[in-house]
Amino acid sequence: MTLAERYKTVRRRTEDICSHLQTEDYVVQPVGDVSPPKWHIGHTTWFFETFILKAYFMGYQDYNPDYNYVFNSYYETVGARVIRTDRGNLSRPTVLDVYRYREYVDEAIYKFLCEGPSPEVEELFVLGLNHEEQHQELLYYDIKYILGHNPLFPAYNPQYSSPKIEEQPGFISINEGVYEVGHTGEDFCFDNELSRHKVYLNAYHISTALVTNAEYLEFINSGGYQDFRYWHAEAWDWVKTNNITAPMYWHNIDGEWHNYTLRGLEPLHLHDSVQHVSFYEAYAYASWKGMRLPTEYEWEVAATQFNWGKSWEWTESAYLPYPGFSKAPGAIGEYNGKFMVNQKVLRGASEATPPGHSRTTYRNFFHPNLRWHFTGIRLAQ
Amino acid sequence: MTLAERYKTVRRRTEDICSHLQTEDYVVQPVGDVSPPKWHIGHTTWFFETFILKAYFMGYQDYNPDYNYVFNSYYETVGARVIRTDRGNLSRPTVLDVYRYREYVDEAIYKFLCEGPSPEVEELFVLGLNHEEQHQELLYYDIKYILGHNPLFPAYNPQYSSPKIEEQPGFISINEGVYEVGHTGEDFCFDNELSRHKVYLNAYHISTALVTNAEYLEFINSGGYQDFRYWHAEAWDWVKTNNITAPMYWHNIDGEWHNYTLRGLEPLHLHDSVQHVSFYEAYAYASWKGMRLPTEYEWEVAATQFNWGKSWEWTESAYLPYPGFSKAPGAIGEYNGKFMVNQKVLRGASEATPPGHSRTTYRNFFHPNLRWHFTGIRLAQ
Amino acid sequence: MTLAERYKTVRRRTEDICSHLQTEDYVVQPVGDVSPPKWHIGHTTWFFETFILKAYFMGYQDYNPDYNYVFNSYYETVGARVIRTDRGNLSRPTVLDVYRYREYVDEAIYKFLCEGPSPEVEELFVLGLNHEEQHQELLYYDIKYILGHNPLFPAYNPQYSSPKIEEQPGFISINEGVYEVGHTGEDFCFDNELSRHKVYLNAYHISTALVTNAEYLEFINSGGYQDFRYWHAEAWDWVKTNNITAPMYWHNIDGEWHNYTLRGLEPLHLHDSVQHVSFYEAYAYASWKGMRLPTEYEWEVAATQFNWGKSWEWTESAYLPYPGFSKAPGAIGEYNGKFMVNQKVLRGASEATPPGHSRTTYRNFFHPNLRWHFTGIRLAQ
Amino acid sequence: MTLAERYKTVRRRTEDICSHLQTEDYVVQPVGDVSPPKWHIGHTTWFFETFILKAYFMGYQDYNPDYNYVFNSYYETVGARVIRTDRGNLSRPTVLDVYRYREYVDEAIYKFLCEGPSPEVEELFVLGLNHEEQHQELLYYDIKYILGHNPLFPAYNPQYSSPKIEEQPGFISINEGVYEVGHTGEDFCFDNELSRHKVYLNAYHISTALVTNAEYLEFINSGGYQDFRYWHAEAWDWVKTNNITAPMYWHNIDGEWHNYTLRGLEPLHLHDSVQHVSFYEAYAYASWKGMRLPTEYEWEVAATQFNWGKSWEWTESAYLPYPGFSKAPGAIGEYNGKFMVNQKVLRGASEATPPGHSRTTYRNFFHPNLRWHFTGIRLAQ
Repeated sequence: MTLAERYKTVRRRTEDICSHLQTEDYVVQPVGDVSPPKWHIGHTTWFFETFILKAYFMGYQDYNPDYNYVFNSYYETVGARVIRTDRGNLSRPTVLDVYRYREYVDEAIYKFLCEGPSPEVEELFVLGLNHEEQHQELLYYDIKYILGHNPLFPAYNPQYSSPKIEEQPGFISINEGVYEVGHTGEDFCFDNELSRHKVYLNAYHISTALVTNAEYLEFINSGGYQDFRYWHAEAWDWVKTNNITAPMYWHNIDGEWHNYTLRGLEPLHLHDSVQHVSFYEAYAYASWKGMRLPTEYEWEVAATQFNWGKSWEWTESAYLPYPGFSKAPGAIGEYNGKFMVNQKVLRGASEATPPGHSRTTYRNFFHPNLRWHFTGIRLAQ
Repeated sequence: MTLAERYKTVRRRTEDICSHLQTEDYVVQPVGDVSPPKWHIGHTTWFFETFILKAYFMGYQDYNPDYNYVFNSYYETVGARVIRTDRGNLSRPTVLDVYRYREYVDEAIYKFLCEGPSPEVEELFVLGLNHEEQHQELLYYDIKYILGHNPLFPAYNPQYSSPKIEEQPGFISINEGVYEVGHTGEDFCFDNELSRHKVYLNAYHISTALVTNAEYLEFINSGGYQDFRYWHAEAWDWVKTNNITAPMYWHNIDGEWHNYTLRGLEPLHLHDSVQHVSFYEAYAYASWKGMRLPTEYEWEVAATQFNWGKSWEWTESAYLPYPGFSKAPGAIGEYNGKFMVNQKVLRGASEATPPGHSRTTYRNFFHPNLRWHFTGIRLAQ
Repeated sequence: MTLAERYKTVRRRTEDICSHLQTEDYVVQPVGDVSPPKWHIGHTTWFFETFILKAYFMGYQDYNPDYNYVFNSYYETVGARVIRTDRGNLSRPTVLDVYRYREYVDEAIYKFLCEGPSPEVEELFVLGLNHEEQHQELLYYDIKYILGHNPLFPAYNPQYSSPKIEEQPGFISINEGVYEVGHTGEDFCFDNELSRHKVYLNAYHISTALVTNAEYLEFINSGGYQDFRYWHAEAWDWVKTNNITAPMYWHNIDGEWHNYTLRGLEPLHLHDSVQHVSFYEAYAYASWKGMRLPTEYEWEVAATQFNWGKSWEWTESAYLPYPGFSKAPGAIGEYNGKFMVNQKVLRGASEATPPGHSRTTYRNFFHPNLRWHFTGIRLAQ
Repeated sequence: MTLAERYKTVRRRTEDICSHLQTEDYVVQPVGDVSPPKWHIGHTTWFFETFILKAYFMGYQDYNPDYNYVFNSYYETVGARVIRTDRGNLSRPTVLDVYRYREYVDEAIYKFLCEGPSPEVEELFVLGLNHEEQHQELLYYDIKYILGHNPLFPAYNPQYSSPKIEEQPGFISINEGVYEVGHTGEDFCFDNELSRHKVYLNAYHISTALVTNAEYLEFINSGGYQDFRYWHAEAWDWVKTNNITAPMYWHNIDGEWHNYTLRGLEPLHLHDSVQHVSFYEAYAYASWKGMRLPTEYEWEVAATQFNWGKSWEWTESAYLPYPGFSKAPGAIGEYNGKFMVNQKVLRGASEATPPGHSRTTYRNFFHPNLRWHFTGIRLAQ
């Protein structure tokens, strides 16, 4: 596939995800961590305009200089930004304006690609496409949050169905010893997966299947949310302050558990994997079960021996730099390193992850209290 | 004009105000005091549906029972409500849905009116129309806030022009004595304007013109925002906490004062009345000038002797019940009485006020720190 | 009594109030509105040092220049101040240090008084003594709060007893007409009681007795705290946010109502007047009773016809300037005027008020949500 | 040394630390992380009373059942607790009361020790003594905060001097390979130091001296606090929100840097190690220097080759359980495990650490934004 074809495929996929939305759905931001879909459409476009067109395409004319202010995210090196919680206050540019901007930039990119970009620029392209794929995943999270927190519980797509992934229940055992982790080979990876290095692991067992809704319900019914012994001190404060009693999107209606899905509100499917739990909940569940969560290295070493990809999986590991990690210079260097404190690593992939985007060395990360992303629980001991 | 004609006129005017909006403009809520225009469209409809159709129109079928939850405002007697700051999180019902709801209710209303409603219901109708006119005014405030706080400063309507009202500069004198205030006659008024009663006024002087931008600029240039002596203690905290240095919508761009208007950003017009000042600022300005604001009674007694209507005018008076005031029973009774604490009375009308909506006995009220509504300053001494 | 004798009497009374405290009680500040007793001792001393000794006593040597920073309250003209909520963080100066400071200033004052101060300075003295009396009253409020919010419920003084004031239950009627209100005569009064002026009152009835605990209990038992109809909108938010279900210091222990008093925790005395209610509660009670609170003018006009002084009494009136009110120049001018927004007037006096401090024209004021001061309810209709 | 002698020594040391305080210093809590010294005195006593006397000493009579409520810290299993930020609101029990309580418990302990406690109870004793030593260290932090944030800058002890520890500037190199970390042997250690296990380390260099004030000043003077590139994203928010421009206790007075020490305010000593920096600052400094902080394993493996103990040292490592870690049952089990999220490991010891309390396997931990404890910076690369 040529770079232009790859570009087209990825860009089109973003628009396909949004094709089920009403104009109004593009605009709102119900909480700080959610961005309006309109912003994702504009921001992924701004990325290509800023780091490729403005930097390398001679004679390129800005679409609108004010858009840098509106669609920048956290790239401190490229000027003042709209503070993050303000995104949902902006009715302009309209959805149509943003799609026009997207079209304008796409056309310029295609022209630019005809010139045959240098290897250095090709690398930036690949980063930009992976960046856009990350925002495709965020689009699913954010859209689900926006519709799933609306009192009318509208469906995103009544025909939506999750990919099927087969799992074998049970545990596999890994021997003590020195293992290598981290990315290897010539394929694209993010800077946080480099460099490959040795780690020493004690012997451990890791589950080949994720925890199901039925299993999680046992934890709820046995009073797990009321017993501080299973929780970190900060987790317990979080449970109490926010009155947490079940995963996000679970609703107990007249004694029956329901679950908001992208198809709308449905009775809880007991055999599905539990989703939308925070690290705090995953840890408390494991603790109640007398087990624990795997570390990211334990996960990576065992990952070839089970099927993964239903949900992101919380690990016990904090998100920290690998030995020898160093930031790329300039704005691109802000990509990962600046988040390496107070977050937890997640491994795997979810139904919202674009096909082929993840891999066994992929390091996703979120704060331990978050759960609007598609996460599940794998146990270790 | 028949009731049906009056109904049609008022309802159409709401839609006309919104005719300049993009779909996205209907949805956002940049601060708690601003409501999304979509909500105003739905709420004014909900008012007629709830208090007239459901209560009096036999066989009326709810458009959608969930809408009560979405479009109720503060009427505690008609069930749980969406907490106010959440309005801007709702992408559904869409703008189109809301206009369909509006159409559905309008049709039912016209049918109901054919039946010849009782005087009691007619009274409710008139209340509903005055209620809708109040929301028309709020629509202007909220739209101006939404567009005027967008970094692109879009115009609401490039052809917008304010009504012209002639003023004679100077002061008139009113003698000491007993005066009557409050509404009299058969015309509609809100419950807070009743009952007419006597007050004793000391002699006073009151200005026949509002303070201009040029005059207010002198206050700014002389350091008024930096000198605590002109401010209430709470006002001074407000100035410091929010870094207030000028009226809302004023922007100093490269040393030149600009003003966001409904036509977009413009150089400041020095001869216009100052607008968008809080009570705190109005008081501080008067204090700096060695004068004071009039009380609401002083305003009412003098109001026939000057032209008013350019802007609402802060008075020194707190919003309190008139002697003999009592709340109407039921939800309608919540209309005014429950707000009679911690607010200030404003008198007059503004360019956003529907024609014929206000009168000299009209009592508008806002918290003293607010200024997104169209307010100005009249001095007394 | 000479000025020196009056000075001695007032200053000694402050120390007597504190004589029941432990050193630790002088230091803490459990909420922002409460000041540590140590601070009152120092602040009242700082007042005499700053406005009299430093201003008029030639050759006076500051006790410690840093104390201005520590003991200033809200007088913006005399330099930066410790922000108010920080007072409880200061372990130094110690209680002993503060009493030494007090002694030093007292000695200088006595020397200064031998010189025979000018009438202007005498006036400042009288203001300072009235100021100290206000802090004596606050000391009672603050001490009661500090001890009454301690889980050990220590008594302030096991022998403490409230002064007895006889009341005749019933209502008296006042005719419609013009009345004069405000202070008159040569005696001391605060600037907010001037100038005497005419007001027009409608006919009204006013109770000659305060509401009792027994009566208030009926309001509680009939569900008054659960029914929004009796409450202002802001009051209802306050009730919900703070889970208010009874007056401050009431504790329901195993089904029996108790009341923390300056003698410690006691079973509720049903015949006593209810105390420690906010304006919001006083208004809701009156509303439930089908009555209302008097205005400050109604209170003042009727006050000679009943005994008052058991508790401060909330009025319906907002705290606003009288006609012709103007601030004194300089720091002293900040005394009252800057608080004239968002507060309610209270009339009367309480058991914490120094004898002779109040009068029928006295205007006390607090925010409507506060209730740590000694307040009760008088009804009107 | 017998257990009774060890007990006496440790308990006396706590009292010695407090011997420089005024009564008032025992009471205040200027921020949530600081506890009033009075509380430390009571809480360490409560620990012995609750976990030893009440549990094992037949016939022991509670000193005061309410004290459990007042002196419990975070032990959720032993009943409701005073919420942490409330500790500074409590004037009672007085300092004298608390010392009496301490005496009462000490006497009971000595009696109990005559009975010859079981090995299980001896273990609890040793835990209790180590617990008290941790509070001795906290006492230094909290006292320094209380006095160092007072506008009078009182000295804790004018004769106070820090222990001298010699350092050789330079870097040592450690080879790649498998190392063992964690506690070994029969001596006391906390549960978080167990169990000893293998780790794989890449080759690294680690400094043999801590960063000095002079070196840190270069970072400040080169604009380090103004350049986001050196900071984590959360750190940058912290810097901006709190206007951080220097370590805690540094004051720039008329262009000269001063430092509040336990002797009072002094000119900054350039050759001393920098102290009172957050993890965020330590990381930013290392980043500016083109280096990094060591991991806790790197530190432990190298620690025999340099002198440590001047200050706690931030490591890059998150505070996580060692392989095989499991919580002790009951309240004691809450000791460490529940904090293993969102915190950073510190290694070494500080001048506030009791002699013999720390060791090379000791794992201290704090949130990355904190800096009132005695911390410094050691670089690695």
